Amino acid sequence: MTGSKWSVPETEVVQRVHERLDADHADVLATIVDVEGNAYRRPGAKMLLDEGGEGVGSITAGCLEDDLRTVAESVRASGRPEVVTYDLMDDEDDVWGLGVGCNGIIEVLLEPLDETYRPAVEAFTNGRDVAVLTVLDGDESAEGFGKMRVPLETGARAYYYPDDGSFVTPDGHSASDWPTSNARLTENAQSLAERGRAGVVELDHEGHRLSVFVDGLAAPPNLVVFGTGHDVGPVTELAAKNDFRVTVVGFRGGVDIEAQFPDADETLTTSPGSVADALDLTERTYAVVMTHNFIDDRLTVETLLDSPAPYVGLMGPHERFEEMRERFEEEGTTFDERALSTLYTPIGLDLGGGSPYQIAHSIVAELLAVSNDRHPDHLRTREGHIHERVAAGASGDD
Amino acid sequence: MTGSKWSVPETEVVQRVHERLDADHADVLATIVDVEGNAYRRPGAKMLLDEGGEGVGSITAGCLEDDLRTVAESVRASGRPEVVTYDLMDDEDDVWGLGVGCNGIIEVLLEPLDETYRPAVEAFTNGRDVAVLTVLDGDESAEGFGKMRVPLETGARAYYYPDDGSFVTPDGHSASDWPTSNARLTENAQSLAERGRAGVVELDHEGHRLSVFVDGLAAPPNLVVFGTGHDVGPVTELAAKNDFRVTVVGFRGGVDIEAQFPDADETLTTSPGSVADALDLTERTYAVVMTHNFIDDRLTVETLLDSPAPYVGLMGPHERFEEMRERFEEEGTTFDERALSTLYTPIGLDLGGGSPYQIAHSIVAELLAVSNDRHPDHLRTREGHIHERVAAGASGDD
Repeated sequence: MTGSKWSVPETEVVQRVHERLDADHADVLATIVDVEGNAYRRPGAKMLLDEGGEGVGSITAGCLEDDLRTVAESVRASGRPEVVTYDLMDDEDDVWGLGVGCNGIIEVLLEPLDETYRPAVEAFTNGRDVAVLTVLDGDESAEGFGKMRVPLETGARAYYYPDDGSFVTPDGHSASDWPTSNARLTENAQSLAERGRAGVVELDHEGHRLSVFVDGLAAPPNLVVFGTGHDVGPVTELAAKNDFRVTVVGFRGGVDIEAQFPDADETLTTSPGSVADALDLTERTYAVVMTHNFIDDRLTVETLLDSPAPYVGLMGPHERFEEMRERFEEEGTTFDERALSTLYTPIGLDLGGGSPYQIAHSIVAELLAVSNDRHPDHLRTREGHIHERVAAGASGDD
Repeated sequence: MTGSKWSVPETEVVQRVHERLDADHADVLATIVDVEGNAYRRPGAKMLLDEGGEGVGSITAGCLEDDLRTVAESVRASGRPEVVTYDLMDDEDDVWGLGVGCNGIIEVLLEPLDETYRPAVEAFTNGRDVAVLTVLDGDESAEGFGKMRVPLETGARAYYYPDDGSFVTPDGHSASDWPTSNARLTENAQSLAERGRAGVVELDHEGHRLSVFVDGLAAPPNLVVFGTGHDVGPVTELAAKNDFRVTVVGFRGGVDIEAQFPDADETLTTSPGSVADALDLTERTYAVVMTHNFIDDRLTVETLLDSPAPYVGLMGPHERFEEMRERFEEEGTTFDERALSTLYTPIGLDLGGGSPYQIAHSIVAELLAVSNDRHPDHLRTREGHIHERVAAGASGDD
């Protein structure tokens, strides 16, 4: 289908949602609610379908998109959200087992894109984590013992912000109808929002069963690249495709950094001594230091190791940092274990390539692993130790 | 500098050389011969400079390119190759140590691009490994004891093909002047050509010292992607940027695969039972199986595990392959340890991302690690075990 952009970074899907809201288009947003078995994408994956049936984003590798277009038409016509379930799991006894198209049971929420979704994209764009809460199954006919009727209908929505613990309705009021003091809901919403994961939370609310789809939108991590050499372009390009929000920092004026790095979300020129003032270095800041200038790199690393940034990647051999360390010691500057644990030098995973793109690929692979808290081994190895994994406290949803 | 393309895949540099040869342009080819200390690129890295000084490819991150342009002018004017040495290493006692620009000593060969280079790009394009041999320092004035004068002048060139062990001159004759029976030369040329690495080999040739730059051009590995879903695009795109020669194979007619995957070098449509006939599966074939159809995947995996392909990546959870294995056993098909060791499922490195680009990034990272024979850990970890590495037989040049 021409005009569709199935495989795009997540940030691009959210950006598209933002644009279409601004332009007041009657698009339909499809989000995976639940998955059982072997599916390509996981809960929270999104696709936006316009009036012509063109899509941005994908929720499968192409198995359901045709049918979803039909459902989207019905949602657009009715103006009401629908949840559809696709059972792509074959009968176990079927000799052709798992032969037809995709596999797994996939539950998808389709909703008319309207202003009630704006808080989600605005939070994402402003670097704020948010969970979008949608009631899937408000049990209005529960046979309680004289208990209050649950005021939450199927389709009701609220937002949860982990930074201040607030529940807010789409029109900006406090979501007082919601079970805001339910620990099961708040803990899940917090965790899913911060990790950018999604799932269904089943609650008991005033004696009624309530099924809530919690769609966590974690604001993209920030990548700050220090340097303006030829090697910065591929890092910027690959990091942006992998949903980092990229800032390129130059230490020399006279270069049009903005034109040089079109994939960067932001560019700025400052001096190595002013890094802490010019940038908001937080626990979301991933930094790659590649100015190829020893003094610039050293001053930048010194500032970064003294910040909450969880990742400080430094280009060059290990000996180069040892040389920096000697200078730090001469100046009486020391770094504790925690600070040094954030330093990655030589930068990147050991993938063996030597071209600019191969070096960039290994750097961005390391950024993904660290930001997702993974040990970057082959997945086939990890699968063999699935119990060890759970015992080590890894999350269970992926 | 507008018009220059510094950071491009290696294959694009070679392709550019090919085009410029065909168009008979007076370009200058710069190749890193040797590196000491901390440099961004390694020996063999190339840059092609045209008459206007615009470049394709990079040999540093931007430190030497201005000066190289000046040297290129002189090489173009004289029509003779030159080797220039840049000492970017600072004095150890300098309080500004390593502060100025790049570091390391870099030796660069600049030569007028002419027909004598054509065999190199043709071998590369045709999937044949080759080593380009260039005499750096023919010792014509050696004080031998009545020995023959060495007939190899500085700048003399020959090609070595590891597949048949032949030494050939640029005009296609057997390179009888060359020390073709010197084991030191042939073994190094073989190894460097096959690994795509470069280095200087010092020889004793009939009593004379001979310094030969051996520039190995390994033909790019072939990646065959089975599948035409939305998820194939990012894999194709990222693999091509990392110098794989990509073929996309579809099993259903009626789809314009070629238009759908513009980054693929080749596309073809066949049936799952005809994969062995339709493709030349060799020890250079890396395969990614992602049709999302169980039967298609199973038949393809069966063919691939029975081929010399060193990497068979299969999309889906481990259980899906176990299901395939049961079918294989029902049919009496078994695979030995070696065959199963080439199977990577779930596919990819454990980087934790879930978007189409993040999944593709983890697949291509695994392809790089396997094709370069690396264990994909953080480089900072590897550096700490450098002795263990050498003891384990790893190469010393990277």
